[in-house]
Formats: sequence, C-alpha cells, structure tokens
Amino acid sequence: MDDMLKDLNRRFDHAALQPQVTEHDIVILCREALSHDLYGVAINPVWVRRARQALTGSAVKIVSVAGFPLGAGRTDLKVAEAVKSVGDGAHEVDMVANIGWLVAEDFGKVVEEIAAVRKNLPYNVLLKVIIEAGKLTESQQIAAARAVIDGGAQFVKTSTGFFGAATTDQVTRLYKAVGGQIEVKASGGIRTVRQCREFIEAGATRLGSSASVSIMEELRSRRGDR
Amino acid sequence: MDDMLKDLNRRFDHAALQPQVTEHDIVILCREALSHDLYGVAINPVWVRRARQALTGSAVKIVSVAGFPLGAGRTDLKVAEAVKSVGDGAHEVDMVANIGWLVAEDFGKVVEEIAAVRKNLPYNVLLKVIIEAGKLTESQQIAAARAVIDGGAQFVKTSTGFFGAATTDQVTRLYKAVGGQIEVKASGGIRTVRQCREFIEAGATRLGSSASVSIMEELRSRRGDR
Repeated sequence: MDDMLKDLNRRFDHAALQPQVTEHDIVILCREALSHDLYGVAINPVWVRRARQALTGSAVKIVSVAGFPLGAGRTDLKVAEAVKSVGDGAHEVDMVANIGWLVAEDFGKVVEEIAAVRKNLPYNVLLKVIIEAGKLTESQQIAAARAVIDGGAQFVKTSTGFFGAATTDQVTRLYKAVGGQIEVKASGGIRTVRQCREFIEAGATRLGSSASVSIMEELRSRRGDR
Repeated sequence: MDDMLKDLNRRFDHAALQPQVTEHDIVILCREALSHDLYGVAINPVWVRRARQALTGSAVKIVSVAGFPLGAGRTDLKVAEAVKSVGDGAHEVDMVANIGWLVAEDFGKVVEEIAAVRKNLPYNVLLKVIIEAGKLTESQQIAAARAVIDGGAQFVKTSTGFFGAATTDQVTRLYKAVGGQIEVKASGGIRTVRQCREFIEAGATRLGSSASVSIMEELRSRRGDR
C-alpha cells in the first residue's frame, strides 16, 4: 500500500455545496462520512445545525463556509456568517477571500478581512481561506498565500469548485509559498485516487471533494487487487 | 422598429457578479450603464458603495444581491445582507431563495424567509427572488413563483446565471403562474437582441445580463440597417 494514500479517508472534507442540496442529502452526506470515517463534511451554513444533529458523538468535523462562493460580500457579514456557523456547530470555516482585491493586488485589504474573521472565532476553530487560484496569476497566487498567513488563518485553499478544478501546479506553488507555516487544502474537481495522490505529493494535507465515497471505493477495490 | 424592443435599454440590470470583478470593473460597469441609459447595475454587496459614488445624481438604479448565488445561507444573514446593501445605497435587492427547500417542496419555509427579508426593507426597495428554475421541475417552478408572491416580493427571477441559462419556457411558465401580481425577471445567458425579444414576448419586464452593452450595440446597428 502506497504511503501517500495511508489514511486517505482522514484527509477528506466530504462536500455537498450545490444550491439544490436538500436536508435529506445532508443526512446522507453525514452517514457517508461516518461510515467511511472521513475527516469532515463541508456544507453551507443553513445545514450546519442539521449536520450537528446527525453527527453527535462522532469524530466527524463540520466545515461551514463564509462568503461562499463569490467572496464579494461585506467583511462584517463574512465575520457574522463564520461566527454564526460556529455557534450552530461548525468546527472549521472555509471563507472566500475577496477575489477582486486579489486580482487588483490590494493584498492589505485581504489580510485585514481575514484577520477580522480570525479574531472573532474561538482559537480552536480552524480557518481556511479560499483564493480561487484559477482566477489569479502565478505571482498573485503566491502573494495570496502570504496574505492568508498574515491574516492568521490555518489553511490556504485552492478553489471553491464552482470556477474550475484545482491543479497540481497550484498546490505545489501554494505549498512552497507557505513554507510550512500553514497547510494547503486542494479542492475542485477531485474525483480519483490518482488525483488525490498527486495533490498529496504536491503538499496538500486536506482534500475537498463531493466524490470522497467513490474515491474510497476505488481505493478499496485496488487494495483488493493486491 | 419592433415594439417589443422599444426602450430595451430601460429593461437591463447590467450585471457584473463574477468573483474576479474589481473596483475598476465596477467603475466601468457604471459608466456603461450611464452612457447607454440602462435601468440599473447588478453587483455584489462589497461594491455597492463604490457604485453609489459612481452613479450619484443619475437615474441608474443599484441592484445588490443577498444569499447569492447559492441561497443556502441562514435567513438572518440574508436579511442582514439585504438591509446593509440598502444602507450602502442599493435601490433593489435580488435574493436567492433556499433552493434545497424548493426542491424538497418545503414552500412554507421559502415564503417565511422571503417575508423576513421583505419586512426588514423600506417599502420603496424592490425585492426580487431568484428561484434557480433550471434546478426545479415545472411544477416546482410554478409553486416557487406562488411562494414569491406569498412572501411579498415584487419580482420572481429565473436564475443566478451561475447554473445554466434562462429559457423562454421558464419565463412563460412563471409569467402565467404570477398572473400579473408580480413581475418576471429573466437572467442567465442573455447575449443577443433576439433572446431579449423572446423573453419580453414571454412576459419578462426586466432582463439581467452582463452583455447589455453588446446587445444595445447590436440593436443600434440593426436600426442603422433600416
């Protein structure tokens, strides 16, 4: 068994973030996370309480989002969304940076906004910041990763999944840019064991995917092949 | 000149809602709206103040969004986003309904949420509700339109533009469903004069498009042809 894929299940934020997701879908998502012992579920704020109920007493983490997926809301409401999600039961928050500020290279504003969210969250809540790398130049991606560190977040995350897939190059670039100070989450278009392997090799410690279950099944069938 | 296309400019919410939109893009959007005498600009909340500054003294309306584009946030934060946008200068708010509730046919919750936003806005602010028709069955679209009326909003709007284009069938269906009680806004994938004509014929009184300028130029070149 490939070392890179050891405990792969513990790297997944199992995601259901589409607008048409129902309460029923959230219950199924939580059951899947429990049955495959996945790290967490990544869901929209309106579903956090329902997920808390479905996951009570388990180790599965609840990951909510803030300013998702456009990142173009007011800072005070990104803060409020993050804080309320934690109040509802979220253990982690994936916020979207203001992508327009990143494109305009107004990094100071990005740092300030991240810091505003960070300082309003309990210290034990992990904050990830999505930079929508596919909309940025390579140097903007690097500067964005530095801004995430400066804002005090714990992860830089490649993409929302709504505007194209993450690439190995992006993960490698972000991993180098953060130099071990924070972690890297890859997300967007992750559907195979092979992709997981490549992203982990490139430096990602967390993977966001709506295909976590089929990936775990692919892995299991491979193991059966040996 | 085609009667359906009379004053077409006055039907456009000229939209720039992508995550990578910058302050500079917003300034250009506002200038375009001024120079073509468009009805309004449709923008994300973080840019409303900048647009107000750019549009001071003009007739161009500012349309902001709430819970956009997923509709899967908490109701209290959709309310807060709508209220703060109006405080920042928005004249109209396009909110996204909870699409999961619509899919689960939990229409009572949808009505309650719309009513919560409506009752917190000044009477003279128009509220539109996006139902993301492409994610709904035909009967769900009709029930959604009724829910929008029951919630007290002024417009039902087909789509966010992030999950597929509006269709003429959707607009016809919504127009019949609302029976003149509220108006219909078509949005998503509108790029030609021909589409505008079809949507207006089907009953839409407002059109959301990021291609308003090229549509107005197409119309002008047609007029030149006569």
